[in-house]
Amino acid sequence: MSADALPSDIPDTMRAAVLHAPKQLEIQRRPVPRPGPGQILVRIEAVGICGSDVHYYEHGRIGDFVVRAPMVLGHEPSGTVVALGPGARRHTPGQLVSLEPGVPCGRCAQCRHGRYNLCPEVSFYATPPVDGALCEYVAVDEDFAHPVPDSLSAEAAALLEPLSVGVWACRKGRVTAGSRVLVTGAGPIGLIAAQTARAFGAAEVVVTDVEPHRLTAARELGATATVDVRATPLTDTGFTPDVLVECSGVPAVADEAIRTVGRAGRAVLVGMGGDSVPLPLAHVQNFEIEVTGTFRYANTWPTAIALAASGEVRLDPLATHHYDLAEAERALTVGAQDPTALKAVVRPRTG
Amino acid sequence: MSADALPSDIPDTMRAAVLHAPKQLEIQRRPVPRPGPGQILVRIEAVGICGSDVHYYEHGRIGDFVVRAPMVLGHEPSGTVVALGPGARRHTPGQLVSLEPGVPCGRCAQCRHGRYNLCPEVSFYATPPVDGALCEYVAVDEDFAHPVPDSLSAEAAALLEPLSVGVWACRKGRVTAGSRVLVTGAGPIGLIAAQTARAFGAAEVVVTDVEPHRLTAARELGATATVDVRATPLTDTGFTPDVLVECSGVPAVADEAIRTVGRAGRAVLVGMGGDSVPLPLAHVQNFEIEVTGTFRYANTWPTAIALAASGEVRLDPLATHHYDLAEAERALTVGAQDPTALKAVVRPRTG
Amino acid sequence: MSADALPSDIPDTMRAAVLHAPKQLEIQRRPVPRPGPGQILVRIEAVGICGSDVHYYEHGRIGDFVVRAPMVLGHEPSGTVVALGPGARRHTPGQLVSLEPGVPCGRCAQCRHGRYNLCPEVSFYATPPVDGALCEYVAVDEDFAHPVPDSLSAEAAALLEPLSVGVWACRKGRVTAGSRVLVTGAGPIGLIAAQTARAFGAAEVVVTDVEPHRLTAARELGATATVDVRATPLTDTGFTPDVLVECSGVPAVADEAIRTVGRAGRAVLVGMGGDSVPLPLAHVQNFEIEVTGTFRYANTWPTAIALAASGEVRLDPLATHHYDLAEAERALTVGAQDPTALKAVVRPRTG
Amino acid sequence: MSADALPSDIPDTMRAAVLHAPKQLEIQRRPVPRPGPGQILVRIEAVGICGSDVHYYEHGRIGDFVVRAPMVLGHEPSGTVVALGPGARRHTPGQLVSLEPGVPCGRCAQCRHGRYNLCPEVSFYATPPVDGALCEYVAVDEDFAHPVPDSLSAEAAALLEPLSVGVWACRKGRVTAGSRVLVTGAGPIGLIAAQTARAFGAAEVVVTDVEPHRLTAARELGATATVDVRATPLTDTGFTPDVLVECSGVPAVADEAIRTVGRAGRAVLVGMGGDSVPLPLAHVQNFEIEVTGTFRYANTWPTAIALAASGEVRLDPLATHHYDLAEAERALTVGAQDPTALKAVVRPRTG
Repeated sequence: MSADALPSDIPDTMRAAVLHAPKQLEIQRRPVPRPGPGQILVRIEAVGICGSDVHYYEHGRIGDFVVRAPMVLGHEPSGTVVALGPGARRHTPGQLVSLEPGVPCGRCAQCRHGRYNLCPEVSFYATPPVDGALCEYVAVDEDFAHPVPDSLSAEAAALLEPLSVGVWACRKGRVTAGSRVLVTGAGPIGLIAAQTARAFGAAEVVVTDVEPHRLTAARELGATATVDVRATPLTDTGFTPDVLVECSGVPAVADEAIRTVGRAGRAVLVGMGGDSVPLPLAHVQNFEIEVTGTFRYANTWPTAIALAASGEVRLDPLATHHYDLAEAERALTVGAQDPTALKAVVRPRTG
Repeated sequence: MSADALPSDIPDTMRAAVLHAPKQLEIQRRPVPRPGPGQILVRIEAVGICGSDVHYYEHGRIGDFVVRAPMVLGHEPSGTVVALGPGARRHTPGQLVSLEPGVPCGRCAQCRHGRYNLCPEVSFYATPPVDGALCEYVAVDEDFAHPVPDSLSAEAAALLEPLSVGVWACRKGRVTAGSRVLVTGAGPIGLIAAQTARAFGAAEVVVTDVEPHRLTAARELGATATVDVRATPLTDTGFTPDVLVECSGVPAVADEAIRTVGRAGRAVLVGMGGDSVPLPLAHVQNFEIEVTGTFRYANTWPTAIALAASGEVRLDPLATHHYDLAEAERALTVGAQDPTALKAVVRPRTG
Repeated sequence: MSADALPSDIPDTMRAAVLHAPKQLEIQRRPVPRPGPGQILVRIEAVGICGSDVHYYEHGRIGDFVVRAPMVLGHEPSGTVVALGPGARRHTPGQLVSLEPGVPCGRCAQCRHGRYNLCPEVSFYATPPVDGALCEYVAVDEDFAHPVPDSLSAEAAALLEPLSVGVWACRKGRVTAGSRVLVTGAGPIGLIAAQTARAFGAAEVVVTDVEPHRLTAARELGATATVDVRATPLTDTGFTPDVLVECSGVPAVADEAIRTVGRAGRAVLVGMGGDSVPLPLAHVQNFEIEVTGTFRYANTWPTAIALAASGEVRLDPLATHHYDLAEAERALTVGAQDPTALKAVVRPRTG
Repeated sequence: MSADALPSDIPDTMRAAVLHAPKQLEIQRRPVPRPGPGQILVRIEAVGICGSDVHYYEHGRIGDFVVRAPMVLGHEPSGTVVALGPGARRHTPGQLVSLEPGVPCGRCAQCRHGRYNLCPEVSFYATPPVDGALCEYVAVDEDFAHPVPDSLSAEAAALLEPLSVGVWACRKGRVTAGSRVLVTGAGPIGLIAAQTARAFGAAEVVVTDVEPHRLTAARELGATATVDVRATPLTDTGFTPDVLVECSGVPAVADEAIRTVGRAGRAVLVGMGGDSVPLPLAHVQNFEIEVTGTFRYANTWPTAIALAASGEVRLDPLATHHYDLAEAERALTVGAQDPTALKAVVRPRTG
């Protein structure tokens, strides 16, 4: 089957959720893309809404990344393979796939070293000026469309992207059997990171937040303890982690949390919190703490698939709110309005 | 309480299982040791019998280690703290402890680098000429007596020693979330290594053996698949592990197993098999396999305790045969006579 | 300048040294290749002759790699950029480049992890059925043609390939400041590995061989000691290396050398020596030696260029014999005839 | 020779430079210590003055470490072995030794993992309340007195301590062959770190400072380039290091320098600069920079000795000012008064 002859049931145009300016999101019709060489055409089944989508929606930018032209949002997609482009050979139509949202160049020094997340020429969904996946079809490099087993739902397949963030954080923190891990912030990433740490063998996983229902979710998903830091200062808990996975994005939380990390421990910064944060230098020096940034992920999908398929990490409970593509704007705003919302997921096919 | 004034219920002498020559084991009376500075006195609760104990019993030697004088066997002990020596301060009498059987010098280059298992001056139980723990009391450096939680049985506390072997093997093999692991040999070490690999997050753990009941045990304890290599050659399975944990000690098994390891994989040799084994060089070169020896373990007890306490690794099912100290010789010979025996454990207090 | 319009001084055909069968090498005319998208056209300046070229010449095969159709030999080339293919943008005509002889797929799991030397789909010069570089022109992916500074000769630029082997071996062995390194075999690779180990900061580099003139070369190039193992058994030297770099390819040498490696040391196998070699298991176990295969190299050229440009590794002294392309057969046979030959280099332009 | 019978030429008392309060240093007589079990008696030959000695002299404290009782300063000593305590067996009287100033417990979790620099119970010279080595004799654990070859001067043997700081920083930064290294601050530590980086194989070592004569020293000692950051902002240089070794202790310098580190680079903080410093989070995240604290060093002396003995790191040129013990106060103040002073060294025997 060639790309010039797409299956007859594929329409010429599709709906897409396009951001034109801060808080100006429109559902528009766009041409269905044609898969190029080595690409496949995927009908989107589910797209998780991430904090960065919300940030672009609200502010039209994240740091130096500015939305200057209309852009489709969404970078946590799953879908069904519907057609293969020229030379594509890794998939069968009908297969459920989870899409890795960034396709690197494959040639630069970073790519050659296996750090393709740091590729300066990566094309990443919903990072200006690259369109995202909040639409009905995407054409994608076959190597970045990961088949998932039947046991995974389309929503779980979409949420393999945030699970990849958790896997990457645990790798950066060298979480292993017996580790003591502190996760600050029990949003979707924190809840995933806590489960991932357990799946990496961590013996203790303590999760902090200020929202009791999030802490309840953390316990249900496997945290060995939780701390409501409005009631109990972290330093009062006496917990000395080997690894901190900072998911709150709040500088003061990061600062306090790093001060609890034990000797030779690692502090992995996942949450973003502005251009500069205070680093507790004396503690970092005296305890030889290693503080590391994280930027997306590399080579995480196989592990994420294994963890989700085995049930060691449960993704479906995170998808608390579900929307049609026509309701994309509600999906982007529910987090600010409903404190019980963990993760909104858009299902384009249902509309 | 000083060592000069031991509790009044501690006798002056005790029973010990002493090897005089191959197949000449006697239960003899020996003085109860007095804990020196920084030591504690421990009443032995359980001692696992290891293949090396059996080997010394049968042959009087293992390689260059020769039993030249009567020696107490046993290096997998747990016990109850009954007295503290001068300056000892880390324990409370009554506490159940698992004993790390080797006490290193703490000063040499190996110790300073954290590789205390390689300390040339280590004193290790039941390695000639050092007496082991198949007796009623031992005096031991407090730093190598690890308190265990109440949830662990005395037998499980004893079997933290072989669990340490499994933890060490998984560390050497860099087993982590998503790993594909092959364990060759489903004896006690193999069954523990398989569970440990799962606890380290391995997605697939395939175990091979030639005894169906051992393979059954492997599946019950968490192996994702087993292979009876009498019926199915390993290479027919199509399984390509990232990590091989070789526990059979059979050179031909190791050779064949290494040939299945995938690119950039690791082969961890746990089983011993003579002075020299064939290495499949072409495969090792073309796939850049890393083959590594293992010698005991270092810094494993905290992790082993965490894995056993959480139930991720189950030790009690391995202890299939139980004996009093007076029956030590039966404990040493049951493995050769009863193919269903996994692990014999001696309980000195019951006699 | 497009590939459709090559510079007028580039001929349509060129000479190439083609192996038809064992010991049947012919200089034939072949079309000058045209650089494809992202490729450049390079006029070959120098090609080092490697042991594998000699082995193909003599036997028509290396293990499973069999020369079934006429093949151009040579995989250590340098050259001058003469034209750019469509989209190529990293070079300027006239620039001297060193060519990395293997171009991986850039997409598979090995490539994505940065281990592109293990790419199953790599296209590697002079490995059947891929033609090598013993000719006048090659078209090559621009990303694998590394510009070298003016301070390097064309022959040194060619020998960055064997230097890459040395860099890779030192990385695999984790050679660093203060390391004690044993290099067995003082052929070109051993002489380069010894220099490379010094450049990585090794404090002691001991080189063994059976040819006095090679040991002399080793001392001149920076070995801190040499051992003529015909006169002095290695084990008599009392040298305990942290790292062994085995370059002799002789199983008995590897076996003996591994037995001298110190606790927690590494044995890096560079030389090839058949399908199977004996591994001194007891020593590997008791000392926890890590034995690792090596297969080519990845991400080594920038380091190799730096080491050669700074003079820390001297490559020109290795090129002891120089030939025109018409003399390629002599270049392939001189090693067997002249024991003083270290490295033969073919200079196609001089003919 | 027992400790009870010290050689007859050893006096009963000695001079020592004792700090009583900020800027109150007195040369006092103290008893010559007697070496305990496993200790040796060392007659001090040279003591380097470190910034921390100066800080204690000026302020009576460093952070939480407060001089509450009179304390001997000095923690960079070398000396001659003059007597062995009971059981000491590693030295011969007359031997020149470099003293590692911290003796850890050898038993805690940090020590067992080989991170003895993080031992909570370490006894470290001139860190309150432990006396230092600015005196004529010290008794020291034989394992921490490192024999040095005859080629090293007593002053160089003393300066193996700051060289250890450099070795540790390069290890933490994973400096290796081909690395591009930025060293901020060309004081003694920076000048040593730059040389050490070269000895680890770094291809480029750029050093910054604001004092031209220090930059001149940096170039003379092997920096490949220097930057006077009063004249040229660091960001204007276009240099993108793999590794930053921050030796200035100035938060603004650290902040700016981290922003120049390339993708996947490491920032090693050596200089101290207060309890908290700003961390350029966006850059750390986007480039996945690893920022690590350093606290003293572990297992560095063998490497430091090798680097100094081979001449790869030159220590003598750093010792610009020499004093008798009676002039200790001048040694502590010369740095503030003479901008050409790099390192003051006290030679107690000359007084």
